[in-house]
Amino acid sequence: MELKVIAYARNGHTDKFGIPRQSREESPIETRIVFEPEYKVAEALRGIEGYSHLWLIWGFSEVDSWSPTVRPPRLGGNKRMGVFATRSPFRPNPLGLSSVRLVRVEDGDLIVSGADVLDGTPIYDIKPYLSFSDSHEDARNGFAEETKGYKLNVEMSATALLNGDASLNDEIRRDIEYILSQDPRPGYQDDPDREYKLDYAGWNVAFGVEKGVVIIKKIQKM
Amino acid sequence: MELKVIAYARNGHTDKFGIPRQSREESPIETRIVFEPEYKVAEALRGIEGYSHLWLIWGFSEVDSWSPTVRPPRLGGNKRMGVFATRSPFRPNPLGLSSVRLVRVEDGDLIVSGADVLDGTPIYDIKPYLSFSDSHEDARNGFAEETKGYKLNVEMSATALLNGDASLNDEIRRDIEYILSQDPRPGYQDDPDREYKLDYAGWNVAFGVEKGVVIIKKIQKM
Repeated sequence: MELKVIAYARNGHTDKFGIPRQSREESPIETRIVFEPEYKVAEALRGIEGYSHLWLIWGFSEVDSWSPTVRPPRLGGNKRMGVFATRSPFRPNPLGLSSVRLVRVEDGDLIVSGADVLDGTPIYDIKPYLSFSDSHEDARNGFAEETKGYKLNVEMSATALLNGDASLNDEIRRDIEYILSQDPRPGYQDDPDREYKLDYAGWNVAFGVEKGVVIIKKIQKM
Repeated sequence: MELKVIAYARNGHTDKFGIPRQSREESPIETRIVFEPEYKVAEALRGIEGYSHLWLIWGFSEVDSWSPTVRPPRLGGNKRMGVFATRSPFRPNPLGLSSVRLVRVEDGDLIVSGADVLDGTPIYDIKPYLSFSDSHEDARNGFAEETKGYKLNVEMSATALLNGDASLNDEIRRDIEYILSQDPRPGYQDDPDREYKLDYAGWNVAFGVEKGVVIIKKIQKM
């Protein structure tokens, strides 16, 4: 089957680093689903506002090979699991699947929250989430079980905004704090002296992690 | 993106008529996911048995056009909804999405239950179900809400097995009763005199529906 791109995702994740590893209900990060001209038909969304959640089927970018086993970052990056037991991009067909919250329909686009996708990600399908078919609250989560509640506290150092960027608004700040709480570091790294860089929505963030707390060292407009 | 078939679904649904309209936890119907030679790699399933549920991304067969609006069968077939507000096959990319229960791994294949797919359906991806990401128990189900608990009682007429088919085993009988309880009739039909035919797992079933009860009139080996 040859897939047609029906829409592109637009959000602040202009860099792969920092994209949450799964979609999450509590994520405040909004993504605009911008339909391609051929599929931008108001009629095709009729009734969609009755749903609180949607599915997105999308494409991982820059993936052109698969591997029978992969190293999930949350397992420290040194344990191999079967690719079909993971959500890794390195699958035979590099499709991503995310449940997102529908925030609103706006100018024929969809505004959703919680999508774990890069800015510019191609979208192949959008479906309503049906709780009686899709929700399995008590599902066993395999090796992912142990990592599901993992979350770091985030603090801003006194000098983080010293360069005088008063234009950092509450939404961007909230998004950045959420991203950092999800611990975007590669799974195999835990060096308190190391400084990491995150680009998000036009902002460059420098941070480190000390004793399980993320310290934002600097935030600057890019 | 050009999708590769990684596996085919094998089950008793040799006919489209009777396939449940969504995957359901309570469905007893088992499907074998038979990997294509290139993807039949035991390693690729390592760790999958730790998950109780999986996602299947699959292809609707014989669909080569889409429509901005469709008529969901459960709304009586005369009300139009936007295609992205439904799980209709007539979408720009005819992809299906089903959460299924993993029953077991057997000879390098997966045995799952609850898949709402035709025998021979191409499978494009298999992912673990992650409850912390995929489960939204309280999601609002739009127009599908009103139909979610819909279910018919099923009775077998005294003469249904009169032709002496003692070989009808409990599993097949349980599957057939489940399928009929889901009301496979086209949404716009409710004629008590009409007789319907269902083919399942090599059996031909004749039934009618009277006052909300399915009456199995005859079951015969095909």
